[in-house]
Amino acid sequence: MSLIQYLSKIQFDFGAIKLLSNELNLLGLKRPLLVTDPGIEACGILEHVLEAAKPHLPIVYSKTTENPNEKSLNECLEIWNKHNCDGLIALGGGSPIDLSKSIALMATHDGKLADYNIKTGGSSRIGRVAPQIAIPTAAGTGAEIGRACVMTLDSGRKCVAVNLNMVAKTVIADPELTLSLPAQLTAATGIDALSHSVEAYLSPSVNPPADAIALDGFVRASQWIKKATQNGNDREARWHMMMASLQGGMVLQKGLGAAHAMATPLGENHHHHGTLIGILLPHAIAFNAPSVSNKIENLQNAAGLKKPMSDWLQKLVHDINLPSRLSDLGETADKIPEIAKRAEEDHLTLTNPRAITAKDYETILKKSL
Amino acid sequence: MSLIQYLSKIQFDFGAIKLLSNELNLLGLKRPLLVTDPGIEACGILEHVLEAAKPHLPIVYSKTTENPNEKSLNECLEIWNKHNCDGLIALGGGSPIDLSKSIALMATHDGKLADYNIKTGGSSRIGRVAPQIAIPTAAGTGAEIGRACVMTLDSGRKCVAVNLNMVAKTVIADPELTLSLPAQLTAATGIDALSHSVEAYLSPSVNPPADAIALDGFVRASQWIKKATQNGNDREARWHMMMASLQGGMVLQKGLGAAHAMATPLGENHHHHGTLIGILLPHAIAFNAPSVSNKIENLQNAAGLKKPMSDWLQKLVHDINLPSRLSDLGETADKIPEIAKRAEEDHLTLTNPRAITAKDYETILKKSL
Repeated sequence: MSLIQYLSKIQFDFGAIKLLSNELNLLGLKRPLLVTDPGIEACGILEHVLEAAKPHLPIVYSKTTENPNEKSLNECLEIWNKHNCDGLIALGGGSPIDLSKSIALMATHDGKLADYNIKTGGSSRIGRVAPQIAIPTAAGTGAEIGRACVMTLDSGRKCVAVNLNMVAKTVIADPELTLSLPAQLTAATGIDALSHSVEAYLSPSVNPPADAIALDGFVRASQWIKKATQNGNDREARWHMMMASLQGGMVLQKGLGAAHAMATPLGENHHHHGTLIGILLPHAIAFNAPSVSNKIENLQNAAGLKKPMSDWLQKLVHDINLPSRLSDLGETADKIPEIAKRAEEDHLTLTNPRAITAKDYETILKKSL
Repeated sequence: MSLIQYLSKIQFDFGAIKLLSNELNLLGLKRPLLVTDPGIEACGILEHVLEAAKPHLPIVYSKTTENPNEKSLNECLEIWNKHNCDGLIALGGGSPIDLSKSIALMATHDGKLADYNIKTGGSSRIGRVAPQIAIPTAAGTGAEIGRACVMTLDSGRKCVAVNLNMVAKTVIADPELTLSLPAQLTAATGIDALSHSVEAYLSPSVNPPADAIALDGFVRASQWIKKATQNGNDREARWHMMMASLQGGMVLQKGLGAAHAMATPLGENHHHHGTLIGILLPHAIAFNAPSVSNKIENLQNAAGLKKPMSDWLQKLVHDINLPSRLSDLGETADKIPEIAKRAEEDHLTLTNPRAITAKDYETILKKSL
């Protein structure tokens, strides 16, 4: 049985941020909480967005950390209650957007965030949450359009909550906001965007509209990621990478695979998610190739790749100056069995196109080291 | 600026109808009004669907006409009020689905249906309407996933209301329900499905996810329409044609073009919509070709067509035994100037890829005669 679902309204183009005030009106928000991070504040994007929100005056929380955590969530819930907030504006990369989802959830639900973890079956109990407008400033995670929220608990463990009710009502995707993104982040988030289209396309779920979007998203990312990385002011490249990121986000409903299943436990060691994906994806594809050779061929043909996908990906990661080995990030062989075990338990293992065990994950992780 | 939006939840596959009872529960519907037509009742599909609704007992209205009208709407509103209904199940082709949308609208809004006509700016005043579950029994209109509702007013004129609030909350797309569709309806609705992907793909609106879906939907329809028409029991063909129909419906948000702009006024003469589209589309494509040759080439290449699109389409219409001329339907030259004028005024003229006037429509209509 196929479940096919798209929910968000997306305003997309250079200058789309000017619609923020009107979109706040359309959602009827009076006291929005704007969640962002120190980098977005420092580079002037926050100011630009607050200007676009006028006459609305959002309350601002700008202390989101990379791999956002429960401490930030609790600080935000205090602000939410104090100011009687009624909705959220998530501004930034995946971190503020995930933090926003967790606030939207916990401002409207009882208990602790961990109660809604997908691993313990808690995500299915998520009902209607507070309305959110997501404004991505990086072209990568697709979090702005997705239903998943990844947070680091006080225990240090990752909590993944997944429910359609957490999807942002409105996305304002303005490539202008990505022009100042540094080359390394452009590369790392871009690889993440590309990987969503690839892993979703290869996932066995039946969803032809998502497959069509994924194929197009992969081709787009493959054609523009180098240009966006080499020249951050290439507006055309920024437009296409932001579109590829949205397309990658739209197809997450098909489920991802082995690369993301490994990236979740590895992310607990404070590595950038996209950087991890760049290292892991080529090896995950090589492992999956025997089971989905036709689909991989479709991707290769559509993008006009001259090499096998996994080789092409490794070269791409090298060309855009991302680390190509887990050891470059300080990872060591002794941690591999535990990471492999955790990857096997991850819900994304179920949508990997080839059956995969902890043993297989160990082999892949060793190759990635 | 690009607005990109997908709203419905779609349950798709053979046997999906078994989910009806649960989907009614999920929407919290207690007293649904089921809207269908005499053909669906006679062939046993209604009984099958009522079985799937149990323990729910929908109130049934089965008198929907082809090109549904205001009289049916008023009858349904009486039933709605009498039974204190709280939602709709639309079962059938485009007619019951459009009638359902008009009931969902008028059960929750003041005034007359004509007040919400897109031509007079009324559609923008449409707010939240009653919840609907759409169950298509033909693979064609895409009405089950679309935001438009086309009704014949008491005056004889068509009223087109268009608003995202009218999109069905849930679509249950079960190809099983299309197995008994006669060859001529399979052909005519199939051409309509195919045409949505083609006209949306050629529309100048910027929406890459919709373009990707449209390209895939066109290829799918082009590969399976003959098989579905020649052997109604070809389950694989039925699956693909229902998917192509949904894909065509998903991309309607890009806007359609000249073929549909002409089909609206011609439809007032009680012709089947898909039959009209089969006649008009090849000529509309030929007219548009100089402006969108690249896009037409993409469609041709993706589907592996050996002829120019317009020639291929004319042959296809002939091969599936549909009329190829308006005169086959009894239309005459004297009516052309009025139809052309009305087509020029249609809102879809704005999303045709080449500027087009009443004069141009006259030329196309004469060629189609």
